Amino acid sequence: MLENIDLSRKLEKRDYKRQISRLQIKLGELQRLAREAGLPVIIVFEGWDAAGKGTLINKLLLALDPRGYNVFPTFAPNEEEHLRPFLWRFWIKTPSAGKFAIFDRSWYRRLITDRVEGITDKKQMPRDLGDILSFERQLSDNGTLIIKFFLHISKKEQKKRFGHLEENKATSWKVTSDDWRHHAQYSQYLKATNDALDRTDTAFAPWTAVESHDSRFAAVKVFSTVCKALEKALKPAKTSNVVLRCANARAEKRAVSMPAILSSVDLSVKIDRNEYRSLLEKYQERIMELEHEAYKKRIPVIIVYEGWDAAGKGGNIRRLVQGMDPRGYEVIPIAAPNDVEKSHCYLWRFWNHMPKAGHIAIFDRSWYGRCMVERVEGFCTGEEWNRSFAEINEMEAHLTGFGAVIIKFWLHIDKNEQLRRFRERELIEHKKWKITNEDWRNRKKWNEYGRAVNEMLYQTGTKAAPWTVIEANDKYYARIKALTTVINRIEEQL
Amino acid sequence: MLENIDLSRKLEKRDYKRQISRLQIKLGELQRLAREAGLPVIIVFEGWDAAGKGTLINKLLLALDPRGYNVFPTFAPNEEEHLRPFLWRFWIKTPSAGKFAIFDRSWYRRLITDRVEGITDKKQMPRDLGDILSFERQLSDNGTLIIKFFLHISKKEQKKRFGHLEENKATSWKVTSDDWRHHAQYSQYLKATNDALDRTDTAFAPWTAVESHDSRFAAVKVFSTVCKALEKALKPAKTSNVVLRCANARAEKRAVSMPAILSSVDLSVKIDRNEYRSLLEKYQERIMELEHEAYKKRIPVIIVYEGWDAAGKGGNIRRLVQGMDPRGYEVIPIAAPNDVEKSHCYLWRFWNHMPKAGHIAIFDRSWYGRCMVERVEGFCTGEEWNRSFAEINEMEAHLTGFGAVIIKFWLHIDKNEQLRRFRERELIEHKKWKITNEDWRNRKKWNEYGRAVNEMLYQTGTKAAPWTVIEANDKYYARIKALTTVINRIEEQL
Repeated sequence: MLENIDLSRKLEKRDYKRQISRLQIKLGELQRLAREAGLPVIIVFEGWDAAGKGTLINKLLLALDPRGYNVFPTFAPNEEEHLRPFLWRFWIKTPSAGKFAIFDRSWYRRLITDRVEGITDKKQMPRDLGDILSFERQLSDNGTLIIKFFLHISKKEQKKRFGHLEENKATSWKVTSDDWRHHAQYSQYLKATNDALDRTDTAFAPWTAVESHDSRFAAVKVFSTVCKALEKALKPAKTSNVVLRCANARAEKRAVSMPAILSSVDLSVKIDRNEYRSLLEKYQERIMELEHEAYKKRIPVIIVYEGWDAAGKGGNIRRLVQGMDPRGYEVIPIAAPNDVEKSHCYLWRFWNHMPKAGHIAIFDRSWYGRCMVERVEGFCTGEEWNRSFAEINEMEAHLTGFGAVIIKFWLHIDKNEQLRRFRERELIEHKKWKITNEDWRNRKKWNEYGRAVNEMLYQTGTKAAPWTVIEANDKYYARIKALTTVINRIEEQL
Repeated sequence: MLENIDLSRKLEKRDYKRQISRLQIKLGELQRLAREAGLPVIIVFEGWDAAGKGTLINKLLLALDPRGYNVFPTFAPNEEEHLRPFLWRFWIKTPSAGKFAIFDRSWYRRLITDRVEGITDKKQMPRDLGDILSFERQLSDNGTLIIKFFLHISKKEQKKRFGHLEENKATSWKVTSDDWRHHAQYSQYLKATNDALDRTDTAFAPWTAVESHDSRFAAVKVFSTVCKALEKALKPAKTSNVVLRCANARAEKRAVSMPAILSSVDLSVKIDRNEYRSLLEKYQERIMELEHEAYKKRIPVIIVYEGWDAAGKGGNIRRLVQGMDPRGYEVIPIAAPNDVEKSHCYLWRFWNHMPKAGHIAIFDRSWYGRCMVERVEGFCTGEEWNRSFAEINEMEAHLTGFGAVIIKFWLHIDKNEQLRRFRERELIEHKKWKITNEDWRNRKKWNEYGRAVNEMLYQTGTKAAPWTVIEANDKYYARIKALTTVINRIEEQL
C-alpha cells in the first residue's frame, strides 16, 4: 500500500486556508447529522513517529463538538489489559450511537509493533489478523463507520524531524532512544506495516495512506476523507429486502435440515437425595481447589447459563459458587439492555464483563439472547440474528485463543415440568415474585423458542466452546452434571 | 470497639438452621423492596485473615438475587489505581439505585493496613480519616444505606485456623508468609483497627463488630443486622419540611449578606487582535511544555469551565488545547445525566472522569450544575443544593490533597453581550445549531442564575481550589486570561 505513494505532494498556504476552513465547517455539520442519525464512527490514526499524528488529531478535534467524541491514545497494554484478550480494551471503547471514537494508534500495534519487536511470535499472526478482521467486520455490519489513516513519511524525513525536535529545548524530550531504535529498524517496520495494511484494507474498513511530508496536504486529505466517508454513510440506505428474504429463507431451510438436538434429550435421568448430598459436597470442594489453580495459572473461565424459564438456572448457579471464594468469581445476570447498552453494538456489554485471566465469570443468560429472545420476539432483524451465529463464534474464538475456558449450558426441561414449576411458584408465598406474566407469554411460544434453541445449539456448538445440554427435569441431577462439567473442562485446560 | 467483645458466643446447629432459613427468605424479600424503592446499599466486610469473610459473603450472596448485587474484592491498589486519589476506585463502584455493592475489604485498608505497614505516614492519617468520613456522609446524605462489619477473632484463634488450613493440602495455599507476618503483628493491627473503627462509627455509617469464633453465630448476626438496617431504611421517611424550610431560609439570608462578586467585575477590559495573536502563540507553546512537565511530575490537572450561555466556553477551550498533545488531555462535556448516571449519587459521574496523575481533564460544565441549573430549575431540593457546597469542597479537597491542580473558570459576560451573540448565532448559517429555545428560556432567568452563581463563587472559592472570574465580553482577552491562569497555576505547583 505504501510503495507507490508520492511523498512530494504539497499544498500552498493560500489554497490550504481556503480548503480547510470550508472542510472544518462541513465536518461540524456532518458530525451533527451523524449524531441525529445515531451513526457511531471510529477513526484510527496510525503512522510513523514524528509523522504528525498528534497535530493532525488536534486539528480534527478543533472542528468537532467535544460532546460528540472521545480520543483514546493506545500505549503498550497495562497490567489490567494484559490479563484480557488483546481486543478487549478496544471493544469496551467502541463508540455508542452518534459518537466518534478517535484512536491515536490502535489494535494495529498487534500486527506491527508487537511483530517487529518480537512480542508476539510469527505463528500468532494469522489468528491475530483473523480476530482483527472479525472485529472490524462485526462493528461495520452492526452499523459503525470505520475510517483508518496511516501517516506516511520517509526514513530521511523522519531523521530530519527527529533532528529538529532535538535541537529545540522545548521539544527535545519528545525524541527518545526508543524512537531512534525504531528509526534504525525503519525498513522492518515498513515491511510489517505494508503487510498489515494490505491484509486489512477491506471494503468495510478501508485504509487511507496519507502523504505527510507536507502537513497542509495531510490535513486536507484527512479532513476530506472523513467528510466523504461520513457523507456516504449518512446517505439513506436502500433497505435490502432481497437480502432479508434470502436470510429468512435460508433460516427456514436450515430449520428443516438441522438435527433436532433437544428432542433427543433423555429427561428421565435422576439422582437420589442422599447420593446428591454426598456428591455435591465432594464436587464443591473440588471446585474450590480448581478456582485457586485456575487463578494461579491465570486461566480465565467463562460459564454461560441458558435454559427455559424455571429450568433452575438460579439454584444451579448457587450450588456451583457455594464453596467458591467470592474474590475469584462474578455472577453476571443479563436482563434487557439499558439505554447506554442499547446505544452500542449488542456484544459491547458482554465485552465489558469478560473476566480477567484467573477469574471466573458466570453469565446468567448471555449474548445468546440475540438468537433466542431477540429473534423470537422480533427485537432484531432476520439478517441480524442470522449474522449473530458467526459473530458469536468469532467472539468466543478470540476468547479461547487467549486461553479462556468457555462452558455453555442449556438447562432443558419439558413443557409439563415447566407448568408444574410455574404453578408451584404461584402457590409459595416467597416464590411468587419469581413468576411474571412474561413467563406465561413466553411459554405460549414454546415451539418457536424450541426451534431457535435447536438452531443455536447447532450453529454455535464449536469444538473450542461446546454446548452442554443439561437434563434438568431433576434438579439434583442437573446440579451435579453442571458441577462435573465445569470440573472436567477446567481440569482439561490445566 | 473490640475491647469488650465476648468472643465465646455461639449458636447451636438446630437454632442456627431455624433462624438462618427464616433470615434468608426475609433478606430476599427486603432486597426486592430495596430495588422497588430505589435504595442503594453498601455492605463492607473487614476483619482478620481467616475470620471467615469469604464464607460469610458467599452465604449472604446465596440469599440474594444476583441481578441486584456486585461484589468488589479490594487488594493493594494496581497501577491504574495508584494514579488516582485513594477513594477514586471506591467512588466509581458505588451502587446505583436499588443495587447492593458488597466490599470484601474496603477503603479501611488506608486506615489500618497502610498505617501498620507504614505505607502512609502518620501525618496523613487525619486527612485520610476526614476524606473517609466525608465520603460516607455524602453517600448517606444522598440516600445510600451503608452497613459495615468487622469480623473479630482472637490471636489464638487465628493461629489455630492458620494451622488447620496448612494441614489440609487443599487449603494450605491460603496461608501465606504475609499472613504469618500480620499474625505476629496482631497487637499493632488490633490497635490500628480499634482506632479506625472508633473514629468512623457514625450514625450514618455505623460499625457492627461480629464475634466470629463461631461461624453460625457470626452468620446470624450479619444476616439480622443487614435485615434490620434494610427495614429501617425502607420505612417511609417523614419528609422533614422543617429542615427544608430552614435550609431555604438560610439560603435567602445568605444571598443578602453575600458579596455580589459578579457585579464588581469590569467587563470593559480588552486586548487588540495583533497582541492577541502573538500572546496566543507564545502561551500555547508554554502550555505544551507544561503539559509535558506535569506529565513527568505526575501532577493531575483539573480545569473547570462554567459561564453564561454564549460566553465563549467552547472557543476558549479550543485555544487552550490547540497546541496540546491529545494523549495528555481530555475534554469532558457535561450534558444532562443519562439513565445510568441519574441512578447514582450526582458526584459519581464526575469521579468516573477524574484524570490520572499526569493528565489534564477539562470539564465543559461540571459538578457545579448542582448549585446552578439544578437549583434554579428545581431539579434538586433546597436541602440538596445547600448541601452541595460542602460536598463539592470536600471532593475538591480530596483531589488537591492527592496533589491535583484544580482551576475553575467562570466566564462572565453581561446581558447585552449575550443578546448580541444569540442574534449573531441565529444569523450565521453554520452557527444556527448552537442556539436553542432553552438558551432563550435560561436568559429570562438571568437574575436567578446570577444569584446562584454569586453564591456558588462565594461558597466554593477555596484556597486550594479558587475560582477565576474571566471577563469575557472580549473573547481575545478571555482566552489569554484563561491561558495565563492555567500557566501560572501549573507553574506554581511545579
